Amino acid sequence: MKFVGSHRGRFVSELIEFVSFPSVSALASHAADTRRCAGWLAERLRAAGLENVTVVSTPRHPIVVADWRHAPDRPTVLIYGHYDVQPADPESEWRTPPFQPAVRGDDLFGRGACDDKGQLWAHVKALEAYLRTSRRLPVNVKCLFEGEEEIGSSNLPRFIARHRRALTASVAVMSDTRMLGPDRPALTISLRGGLGLELEVRGPRRDLHSGNFGGAVHNPLQALCEMISRFHDAGGRIAIPGFYDRVRRWPDEERSRMARTGPGDREILRDAQTRQPWGEAEFSLYERTTIRPALTVNGLTGGYQGPGGKAVIPARATAKISLRLVPDQDPHEIEMLVRDWIRRHTPTTVESEVRTVMRAQPALVDRRHPALRAAALAYHRGFGTWPVLVRSGGTIPVVNMFQRWLRVPTVLMGFALPDDRIHAPNEKFHLPNLYRGIATCIEFMEQVGKMAPPVRCDASDLHLSGASS
Amino acid sequence: MKFVGSHRGRFVSELIEFVSFPSVSALASHAADTRRCAGWLAERLRAAGLENVTVVSTPRHPIVVADWRHAPDRPTVLIYGHYDVQPADPESEWRTPPFQPAVRGDDLFGRGACDDKGQLWAHVKALEAYLRTSRRLPVNVKCLFEGEEEIGSSNLPRFIARHRRALTASVAVMSDTRMLGPDRPALTISLRGGLGLELEVRGPRRDLHSGNFGGAVHNPLQALCEMISRFHDAGGRIAIPGFYDRVRRWPDEERSRMARTGPGDREILRDAQTRQPWGEAEFSLYERTTIRPALTVNGLTGGYQGPGGKAVIPARATAKISLRLVPDQDPHEIEMLVRDWIRRHTPTTVESEVRTVMRAQPALVDRRHPALRAAALAYHRGFGTWPVLVRSGGTIPVVNMFQRWLRVPTVLMGFALPDDRIHAPNEKFHLPNLYRGIATCIEFMEQVGKMAPPVRCDASDLHLSGASS
Repeated sequence: MKFVGSHRGRFVSELIEFVSFPSVSALASHAADTRRCAGWLAERLRAAGLENVTVVSTPRHPIVVADWRHAPDRPTVLIYGHYDVQPADPESEWRTPPFQPAVRGDDLFGRGACDDKGQLWAHVKALEAYLRTSRRLPVNVKCLFEGEEEIGSSNLPRFIARHRRALTASVAVMSDTRMLGPDRPALTISLRGGLGLELEVRGPRRDLHSGNFGGAVHNPLQALCEMISRFHDAGGRIAIPGFYDRVRRWPDEERSRMARTGPGDREILRDAQTRQPWGEAEFSLYERTTIRPALTVNGLTGGYQGPGGKAVIPARATAKISLRLVPDQDPHEIEMLVRDWIRRHTPTTVESEVRTVMRAQPALVDRRHPALRAAALAYHRGFGTWPVLVRSGGTIPVVNMFQRWLRVPTVLMGFALPDDRIHAPNEKFHLPNLYRGIATCIEFMEQVGKMAPPVRCDASDLHLSGASS
Repeated sequence: MKFVGSHRGRFVSELIEFVSFPSVSALASHAADTRRCAGWLAERLRAAGLENVTVVSTPRHPIVVADWRHAPDRPTVLIYGHYDVQPADPESEWRTPPFQPAVRGDDLFGRGACDDKGQLWAHVKALEAYLRTSRRLPVNVKCLFEGEEEIGSSNLPRFIARHRRALTASVAVMSDTRMLGPDRPALTISLRGGLGLELEVRGPRRDLHSGNFGGAVHNPLQALCEMISRFHDAGGRIAIPGFYDRVRRWPDEERSRMARTGPGDREILRDAQTRQPWGEAEFSLYERTTIRPALTVNGLTGGYQGPGGKAVIPARATAKISLRLVPDQDPHEIEMLVRDWIRRHTPTTVESEVRTVMRAQPALVDRRHPALRAAALAYHRGFGTWPVLVRSGGTIPVVNMFQRWLRVPTVLMGFALPDDRIHAPNEKFHLPNLYRGIATCIEFMEQVGKMAPPVRCDASDLHLSGASS
């Protein structure tokens, strides 16, 4: 579109402004920055021509909503995104400061440039371009931009449940996933669920001198290692009884399709910079990371960690454990199995405690849904090539919430590149993907607008006066 | 002695000055403080009447030596101690600042008040009191006070080996061990040796997203836990082949003696604030912690350790492992066994590396040596009660060095109390133990002076002009 071409410079400088807010949701010290970022985003949505723009307070970081509902005979698109970002540490590893966005070559560097501010921006600028040039949209639109995605979206479920009617839509769309390469767009059609746990093992009431007590007291750190070592059997299968009972067995047809589209084992190992595979030998690596569940120790800490040595038996040790779940596993049921297993496998010489940090349902998108066809056509327009349908091993809890509570599929139409260093130092967004992304978002609305039969558009108002700030 | 009684106030205020030096050997930022502390100590030794007082530079922290050699027909006592201290962190847990020593009730609080400045001070003040009142000593004396005990005494072996002749003595004595209670002095007659290792396990070249790769890559943190879980068998015995081959089997007579003198299982569990014992069931807890070896994971770190969760498969994980060794195990031989075992038990999906941090030989003191009798008489004079002979599970490398290189036994005549919080916040020294300790040190010199037959006193000079600073 011509409008987009002539406004690229402004779009980028606005995005730079957006990225310069240190809206780090995890850090209480940035709560005010996060709120200011929400206010700034609301202002930009108003300027783009959206209506009923509201910054909705939650117990932590606000949700920004907006809509445009003047196409009563057309479908409604719910656009989801998040304006909060991961912490930027270690800051010393950044070439330029994380919240002073810098353009180098075709890339914009800064924390959140890609995840998710840059990708969210493609939608906002698509809406603006459409409204400025056509004074209307080809669909109804509802925007839902949250500020807690990076900390588990804890206030989002209640918001969605409460405003179920106001959020009614024909389809949801979000851009917060990866393409396979600059010219290889990808539509994600499955996500794993998640269960995040903290396992603490406690022994003596205080740290002991390992010279005085070594050999007579069970070291909680050792006990924790022993417990962790039993989570998997020798073949890399999770050894918790019942764990695989509800894991869906896919027909050969689907497994063949996955083998055909890839990625293959070699590609996954190369991406992982790892020489040897591990895990369930009867499944490909692509299958192991998408249609099979996994249990990972994300972190472990206990005892002395400084230079040299220290003669200590620590009083406690803690591990962070996350499970990736697949259809039809339920996080609550798996949590019960894991808790029960841990209780039974805690040596009598120590105590253990399990704290649940996160639960998320797996999600699937029906590949025959017309919205996926719309997205494929949109990518073809924006990137000049058809997207691949991929399964992801990651977890985006909101996708399942939309599915369960709003009864809509979510189109995962990502613009991130594999080397965008999401969550890492020197995160970047490839600016050509912003321009192509805007074109893709515009075409997506066009295509959904043509979706037949038109889905009933709910008239309830997104303006939430009671909860607004 | 009258002199001691009338100078108590000064002795304590000097000790306060001594403790106020932050001579933290582990921290480079305190190197100058450690050197100043050495200089101050040398000055005090001169003031006490010692001769040839020298601050000897080493590649890191200096050694302070001094002597008094005017009793040619009497034995020579080598007094060892250390003026360096452990780091004081966490400083927030101290009631009064660690390097602003404070007297509360009968106790002097401060980092190093007990370990080892207060205990070393008892010897220095005993020498001063004797020399001031008698103008002579009942024995020849050589002092060796190092500044690297808390960081493994790495420059001491070379110093001892090099000045073997100058350090010749009839017996060594140090006060850096615990009594069993305020009125229960104890002579330590055995110490375990040590082997300190760092075990690092590496997998992918960089941290991976556990959503994208969980299930397909062996997590180095999990692999490390698996390796650690195999160090012991189900009965708490170390599972490394050959590990116990040279462990000395003590006759029933010795084991009965240990059972009689204690401490008993209940006492050890109470001290450990632990409900259940662990380890080799056929040995008492006192035996498990003294005449049996032990392997302890002192610290483990890998992956994410902040609040909440993070979806990461860490690229590496590291454990600090220490082994306590007993006669007749040799640290070098055990190191080979452990390294070989780790090599064979590293899964092919990861790599491992072992770094050696420390090696120390076990040490035994012959309970029939006349110096032990001298020490027992000294304790009886100083504390009004006979000491118990105890075995310790700890490690003091210098004891074995004196044994091997100088061919002298070391009398471990400690004045620390079990609740002195050595290495922990709010370390203290019980001031009555300073006064009783001085009396004990004086009587010890008297008694060694009576030891027959007198041992040849080496005439070589402790003044080390070549190496002095």
